[in-house]
Amino acid sequence: MKKVEHIGIAVNNLTDASVLYEKLLNTSVYKTEEVASEHVLTAFLQCGPNKIELLQATSEDSAIAAFLAKKGEGIHHIAFDVEDIEAEMQRLKNEGFILLNDKPKRGADNKLVCFVHPKSAGGVLVELCQEIK
Amino acid sequence: MKKVEHIGIAVNNLTDASVLYEKLLNTSVYKTEEVASEHVLTAFLQCGPNKIELLQATSEDSAIAAFLAKKGEGIHHIAFDVEDIEAEMQRLKNEGFILLNDKPKRGADNKLVCFVHPKSAGGVLVELCQEIK
Repeated sequence: MKKVEHIGIAVNNLTDASVLYEKLLNTSVYKTEEVASEHVLTAFLQCGPNKIELLQATSEDSAIAAFLAKKGEGIHHIAFDVEDIEAEMQRLKNEGFILLNDKPKRGADNKLVCFVHPKSAGGVLVELCQEIK
Repeated sequence: MKKVEHIGIAVNNLTDASVLYEKLLNTSVYKTEEVASEHVLTAFLQCGPNKIELLQATSEDSAIAAFLAKKGEGIHHIAFDVEDIEAEMQRLKNEGFILLNDKPKRGADNKLVCFVHPKSAGGVLVELCQEIK
């Protein structure tokens, strides 16, 4: 795990949330991107070596819609930057963590990603992400 | 805001959680520290430029005890590293954020800290922290 790549935050409205987090972090959203497979619209803000990813659901099928309905706006996941996602997935499986996908999948921001079940990780939804070169 | 200084995670049992997060992050807890004023026992793990802070309540008066009772284990706050905490507090106040303390207070890990009310920050408990030199 090289660093916290980003912190994912579930929001009701990406436009409103972008204004709020731009004020909070004193910077501008540098990218918005739709991840159709996940039914989310995302916006990214940089904070030194880290990013904040705002996530708005685009459909009721989205995990973000379910999260918002249950818990309201707030921190959704922590993503860690890894060098070799397949090796890291294997290491975590060997340590007893439950992975939510068998193989890395394509995420936002040019990444291969894999999620770890929060039940196996102290209530935290953990994402591994590796830059696609 | 220079970077994500740490992510605070509320845990029921610091010993058990330390073992779990050491496996997750593939590193060792490098420090444990009691913050008596906050009624918490903390453990820190490094992840590149960032830290994970595990927080166990030492009393029912702790905000962590209230959080655990309401939400269970999971992400409690995001702390951002700032150069000048008083200037940053003033900037956020001017932007309409609600601060939970008027003046910086002493936190764990040799920091001056100030919290921003989650109601004013999209449901996220935000901490500002400045290294004490």
